[in-house]
Amino acid sequence: MSLLIENARIVTMTGDTVTPVLGDLLIEGELITAVGEVPIEKKIQADQVIDATGMIAMPGLVNCHNHAAMSILRGFSEDLRLMEWLSQKMWPAEARMTAEDVYLGTLLSTVEMIKSGTTTFADMYVFTDEVARAVVDSGMRGVLTRGLIEMDEGREERFTEARSLFETWSGAGNGRISVMVGPHGPHTCPPSYLKRAIALAKEFDAPLHIHLAETTEEVTLIKQEYGLTPTAYLQEVGLFDHHVVLAHSVHLSAADIEILRRAQLRGGIAHNPVSNLKLGCGIAPIVEYMQAGLTVGLGTDGPGSATTLDLFEEIKAAAWMQKVRTFDPTALNASQVLQMATREGAKVLALEDRIGTLEAGKRADVILVDLNAAHLRPHHDVSALLAYSANGADVHTTIINGEILMRDRKLTKLDEQALLTEIETRAKRIVEGI
Amino acid sequence: MSLLIENARIVTMTGDTVTPVLGDLLIEGELITAVGEVPIEKKIQADQVIDATGMIAMPGLVNCHNHAAMSILRGFSEDLRLMEWLSQKMWPAEARMTAEDVYLGTLLSTVEMIKSGTTTFADMYVFTDEVARAVVDSGMRGVLTRGLIEMDEGREERFTEARSLFETWSGAGNGRISVMVGPHGPHTCPPSYLKRAIALAKEFDAPLHIHLAETTEEVTLIKQEYGLTPTAYLQEVGLFDHHVVLAHSVHLSAADIEILRRAQLRGGIAHNPVSNLKLGCGIAPIVEYMQAGLTVGLGTDGPGSATTLDLFEEIKAAAWMQKVRTFDPTALNASQVLQMATREGAKVLALEDRIGTLEAGKRADVILVDLNAAHLRPHHDVSALLAYSANGADVHTTIINGEILMRDRKLTKLDEQALLTEIETRAKRIVEGI
Repeated sequence: MSLLIENARIVTMTGDTVTPVLGDLLIEGELITAVGEVPIEKKIQADQVIDATGMIAMPGLVNCHNHAAMSILRGFSEDLRLMEWLSQKMWPAEARMTAEDVYLGTLLSTVEMIKSGTTTFADMYVFTDEVARAVVDSGMRGVLTRGLIEMDEGREERFTEARSLFETWSGAGNGRISVMVGPHGPHTCPPSYLKRAIALAKEFDAPLHIHLAETTEEVTLIKQEYGLTPTAYLQEVGLFDHHVVLAHSVHLSAADIEILRRAQLRGGIAHNPVSNLKLGCGIAPIVEYMQAGLTVGLGTDGPGSATTLDLFEEIKAAAWMQKVRTFDPTALNASQVLQMATREGAKVLALEDRIGTLEAGKRADVILVDLNAAHLRPHHDVSALLAYSANGADVHTTIINGEILMRDRKLTKLDEQALLTEIETRAKRIVEGI
Repeated sequence: MSLLIENARIVTMTGDTVTPVLGDLLIEGELITAVGEVPIEKKIQADQVIDATGMIAMPGLVNCHNHAAMSILRGFSEDLRLMEWLSQKMWPAEARMTAEDVYLGTLLSTVEMIKSGTTTFADMYVFTDEVARAVVDSGMRGVLTRGLIEMDEGREERFTEARSLFETWSGAGNGRISVMVGPHGPHTCPPSYLKRAIALAKEFDAPLHIHLAETTEEVTLIKQEYGLTPTAYLQEVGLFDHHVVLAHSVHLSAADIEILRRAQLRGGIAHNPVSNLKLGCGIAPIVEYMQAGLTVGLGTDGPGSATTLDLFEEIKAAAWMQKVRTFDPTALNASQVLQMATREGAKVLALEDRIGTLEAGKRADVILVDLNAAHLRPHHDVSALLAYSANGADVHTTIINGEILMRDRKLTKLDEQALLTEIETRAKRIVEGI
């Protein structure tokens, strides 16, 4: 199967700045095989053609940190303090969630992501067989982990599940699923437990994905426990010798940043702007991370807290937060935040060989953004429009691994309406009386 | 003409919290005449019926601060420092804008606003005859001012234009236009000039609209000039004896807030979250304003800086900013930010007798928001979904002054495509070579 996208304004995300170039794009099977100029004979032979006149063709967005199944709890408990939110609302509700709830919650999130231009997401959750099944069924690309916490019974079971995730699902869905090891965070994983997680990552030659320094409370707690910052604690245990995704990383000191710089960290930061704002956690020093040469991608965090999975909102919020934190409107410009949401995110997830840019040889994760709307006119500067004015609803077409999953805002693979109805019923049951 | 909206989940915005109630809504002519239960004979007689099953009916959003015509410069100069942005880009471009450019730029903004659920906007700009003409032609509700600055030639002309705006346009468009006096700000208006503006406001028994303390630079400047904070300076001149819209109000001290509290300020703050973030200005102490009993509405600022006019983004950003500023996720909850975008905004603009809530006797400025989308499911808490998950593209229908201006996302009054094409050509001409 070959698919020709014609007359697009192509943003390859390969350069330093985001500058669209008018041209065509050829997809053959799962791969991009030509960008810009497509040989005439290939054009003639194309099985399918999309006329992308007036549209941007760009790499699909990469969501580096999610707990996708929590969409089923979206809006269930808002405007609460973190511990109240967790202990009185989220944990009791999550305890009631069945495997099928997790499957359908994850599926709901894939629908939202496909409709807002996200083509890859990194996830940490439970019932990971169901998460993986939803990824396969949705057509999305997923980087999955079983969340590992040391607390209470089930600690062995969680490791068994983490191992089985590698054995059963790595490479599934035509290579769309990759697997990482997911120790939850410094405050939920003591040293011995973390070292076991690292050993598992070594065994499968896989990266790790962990929460880091989301709140000042966490920093205080780890200092009390180990006499170290959370970052220094993770270094001590040896985590930074491996490719690791550091979610949040809101409260890092200059010394912490220096630790990561010296470690020449593989992987990088999964920055979750909206979640950090909405939960009142703080503003991560992203400008300093980039100055230290760290790779920074964007994530949404779970839709239970952030309440949407629209990465275009994270793109805006990421730029806004650095500008206001530094009182400098030049901080984190439009090109930089767009790169974070695509190419840099792919690096954070160890997928830069496959996705993140539009280049021949890469997997065809491509979105078309329709620029013919009042809020996206006039076209003085397309990168600014994409970064600051577009939102998920402007995505016209979403292609993942060469497969068209949404065209003209209609899903091609999933029955959206049936899913929304089913979710509503299940959601009511889960929270009843909580 | 009567219009019946059936089976809506109605958010009247009259109470302390946002709680939708299933029911019907009747509009007769320009007015809402029944909310919740509509008499059966009125239902039968309705000229037009909209089935709003699965939708929220709520008051149209109120944008308290805009420079709408600047949409024609959207994205033209991004990620620059304020003075560089103004002097090297905006001012030279604005100098080239003709009356017709202002008309069409304003019209473009009305299209964006109607499509994202805003029904009223307050504006400060030049060529105000053209702004008013665009408001009349678009069907929107507008609160217009001629921006008054003391600098250079034209200072008399500006006052003449401000006066003519009252005489020619006040009450035009079936009462959709109201007029205020718009002294630009403390740093552009010396005392004598401000007093003249106040006298004009008295003459027409009209409120004033002014920028206040947008940047720390302004605070420093005014202190150097008058030995006062900008707020104390405006008090000294007597501005707070009148109904006044204070745009931005980012950098107010506790003493400044006390001045406004003691003045029992009529009007209130026009808070512009996205603009303040994006230009790196700072985060206004909105929680403290509300504790002091001040009225706070939301605005976008001009689309030249903020780059979108989607008030749903401002609703989110307003909540996020207070939560992160105070490190408290309970600060500024969903109901409060939704009230700011509607009822409170109406008070700020002295329009609370006409708009801002859904009540019999008020003008029919109503929007329908479609909740049947992946990012708006499940429906655990509709106020949270409206505040944190919805965006402008979820608005299905927009009604202003009893007239349906958008239905099923299609404009009924303006030719959107012709306008977008015309804008593109004009925009290129304006910025050429700058």
